[in-house]
Amino acid sequence: MPKLITTRTRIADLGKPRIIVIGGGFGGLEVVKGLEGIKAQVVLFDKFNHHTFQPLLYQVATSGLETNSIVAPFRKLFGSQSDFYFRLGEVKKIKPEENYIETSIGGVKYDYLVIATGAVTNFYGMTEVEKHSSSMKNIVDATKLRNKIIRQLEYALLTEDHEVMNSLMDFVIVGGGPTGVELSGALTELKKNVFPKDYKELDMRNMDIHLIEASPRLLNGMSDIAGQKALEFLTEMGVKVHLNAAVKSYDGYEVVLSTGEKLVSRSLIWAAGVKGNPIEGMNPELIGRGNRLMVDEFNRVKGYENIFAIGDVALMEGDVKAPKGHPMMAPPAQQQGRLVAKNIKNLMLKKTLKPFRYFDKGSMATVGRHKAVVDMKGIRFQGFFAWYVWMFVHLMSIVGFRNKVFTFFSWMWNYFSYDRSNRLIIGRNEEKINQEELSKHTN
Amino acid sequence: MPKLITTRTRIADLGKPRIIVIGGGFGGLEVVKGLEGIKAQVVLFDKFNHHTFQPLLYQVATSGLETNSIVAPFRKLFGSQSDFYFRLGEVKKIKPEENYIETSIGGVKYDYLVIATGAVTNFYGMTEVEKHSSSMKNIVDATKLRNKIIRQLEYALLTEDHEVMNSLMDFVIVGGGPTGVELSGALTELKKNVFPKDYKELDMRNMDIHLIEASPRLLNGMSDIAGQKALEFLTEMGVKVHLNAAVKSYDGYEVVLSTGEKLVSRSLIWAAGVKGNPIEGMNPELIGRGNRLMVDEFNRVKGYENIFAIGDVALMEGDVKAPKGHPMMAPPAQQQGRLVAKNIKNLMLKKTLKPFRYFDKGSMATVGRHKAVVDMKGIRFQGFFAWYVWMFVHLMSIVGFRNKVFTFFSWMWNYFSYDRSNRLIIGRNEEKINQEELSKHTN
Repeated sequence: MPKLITTRTRIADLGKPRIIVIGGGFGGLEVVKGLEGIKAQVVLFDKFNHHTFQPLLYQVATSGLETNSIVAPFRKLFGSQSDFYFRLGEVKKIKPEENYIETSIGGVKYDYLVIATGAVTNFYGMTEVEKHSSSMKNIVDATKLRNKIIRQLEYALLTEDHEVMNSLMDFVIVGGGPTGVELSGALTELKKNVFPKDYKELDMRNMDIHLIEASPRLLNGMSDIAGQKALEFLTEMGVKVHLNAAVKSYDGYEVVLSTGEKLVSRSLIWAAGVKGNPIEGMNPELIGRGNRLMVDEFNRVKGYENIFAIGDVALMEGDVKAPKGHPMMAPPAQQQGRLVAKNIKNLMLKKTLKPFRYFDKGSMATVGRHKAVVDMKGIRFQGFFAWYVWMFVHLMSIVGFRNKVFTFFSWMWNYFSYDRSNRLIIGRNEEKINQEELSKHTN
Repeated sequence: MPKLITTRTRIADLGKPRIIVIGGGFGGLEVVKGLEGIKAQVVLFDKFNHHTFQPLLYQVATSGLETNSIVAPFRKLFGSQSDFYFRLGEVKKIKPEENYIETSIGGVKYDYLVIATGAVTNFYGMTEVEKHSSSMKNIVDATKLRNKIIRQLEYALLTEDHEVMNSLMDFVIVGGGPTGVELSGALTELKKNVFPKDYKELDMRNMDIHLIEASPRLLNGMSDIAGQKALEFLTEMGVKVHLNAAVKSYDGYEVVLSTGEKLVSRSLIWAAGVKGNPIEGMNPELIGRGNRLMVDEFNRVKGYENIFAIGDVALMEGDVKAPKGHPMMAPPAQQQGRLVAKNIKNLMLKKTLKPFRYFDKGSMATVGRHKAVVDMKGIRFQGFFAWYVWMFVHLMSIVGFRNKVFTFFSWMWNYFSYDRSNRLIIGRNEEKINQEELSKHTN
């Protein structure tokens, strides 16, 4: 059989400037959209063939939403945009001096480059913890976690040893930011509304959900009242919140906290931080706090004329709204993406660039049914109304009209039925439980 | 860390007879449903935690339906049925003399056993073909195939070698039964409506879809006119149908047909047959044609009082409607499942058993938009109306109300938009294309 002999990305030379965008997250999407109609070739590289709406990954992980509702194929999103090219591949290295990138599918030159590679989970060097815990940065992670949560309950049915059973039924979530808060809330709703019907053989009072936060409060990016209310909601729902507690070690079984306390669980979900995900080849001195690439006020990587970085991977200091860098969330990425698209046009037309100014629209997090916290320009509210606002804003933000519709229906369904229909174990060979796996079962 | 020390299924002894059902396909579901209210413990074993609506797997594979729409968790289906137990595990062996089964999660005794393990793909001993081809018997297979179809197009973008490109863009489907016909139709619709927009860089005229059938006609289980019309529809749509042609060999690249013709494709989808999937431990002399377990007219495995087999895995001869055994399709399995539930009650009450008589409701297959063929009692029709009948019947048959609703919406969406929104590559590391994988890319 002939080998596949290609060693190149085979991106046509259109005789126009080529703008390469690396990563189709919130920021990358806005760049591509913003470049519509430009006299240039726009090439998007991504490891996945779809955009992922990350804020709702936790709902996929807790069986609330179908996988497909929160992802949208890039080719569908930009199929009608002229001179748009998508390539499924991973960018390995940038060679700025040659205006060239090396990728898993070959090398290619660029005229302008936008690095929008986002962030990866930050384990702060704790490799043992990393090895044994789940994280949630993409749809594969979220699906794996969903499989795992349900599998643990199936396993718990098989033992009479109380300690072993507890280690399977208890869940430890690390990180009291929006992801940790939302995930522990959603797990608690599974415990309350779904698992008692599914696992009548198990005593659900044995299922503990722990939320570990190193600082003295939850939702650090939000107002004090939001953090306080989230704590109240979670406590009311039965989540065991540990403040001022960090994870010291985890071997897949025993969680040791900085307070000295020990918890036992075979499921630790790490939502305690992210760090920028820069690409090899840039000047290492440009990597600043949070592993982010230092950029100027136009999101240009410092020292380069034609390389931009946006969103989680970019560190812009000096913005009056966020002097030490912007929060690693969707809105700054989107706003920077839109401006970078404009500034690339400006560059091409030799016009003056416009500096970035972050517009903080506020933030929000949901805890459970009728329970959310919202901080908006000057107003802060919590509870029932906040929950509706949270749902509305997220629904409107999901990429793709069809996804909005299907997510809306799923939410209506879950709301009225108190059910989570996607409690499925779907994965290569993972559905098979066997004794060997059971006995070596550590993650 | 303590090992999981369980070696048992830990199924409570309720002091009642225990009925074990192996497999939650169409037949198994009906048995469990039919046993509701019985004074016995009902235990369902399955390798998956969900029922799969197999007739629509091909739509998952061709991006028409979301994975989750055609599966339903067993615990959701039977959560309210008293004395119902589900165990996620694989039954390895039956020990009839001890009324005992060995499973991946330990051993357990039964009073009555129903084998409803269905069928597996039959490669007729062609291991080389098996190694290199895709099949479609469960949701993991279907998702893998979806990933593969889309990945091949992404790969095809990367080569200029015409032969290599063809090997990626061409698809060979083996077997002209309903699955083969439906799959080639659905692939053709992707080729016509979706891929030209997604892959403007590729010339879609280079994409060939071959359907290989060993006999002189398509849809052998149906009427001549249905087979003839299906052939007309497919030919009209551009599928290259090869009748009287069997696959002699396939090395992952070159398909050699019994006619001497050779095709080149890196994607061969095997839908050319299934065989029964009996469990070890039964008398080997009981395994008859099609690898099915020989049963009497009550679906009792011959020679056993308390072991039943139903559906694809059961071979019942002598039924006037199907003297040589029933077709390996949903309706006989469902009808047998319902009757076996009643006959187990009869056995427990020491009443006379009722023999099985197959009620043939007819059969149908869809080819594409407005194109289907239907054989029903005395009437046969094809085309537009048949297509609506096909959709209606399938929608009504999908297990779970929510799945019906979501499938309905997906179909409406696909119908009006001519789109297939689920063209996603979601799988462990598979989204990553790299040169090494490309060069060894054989399946």
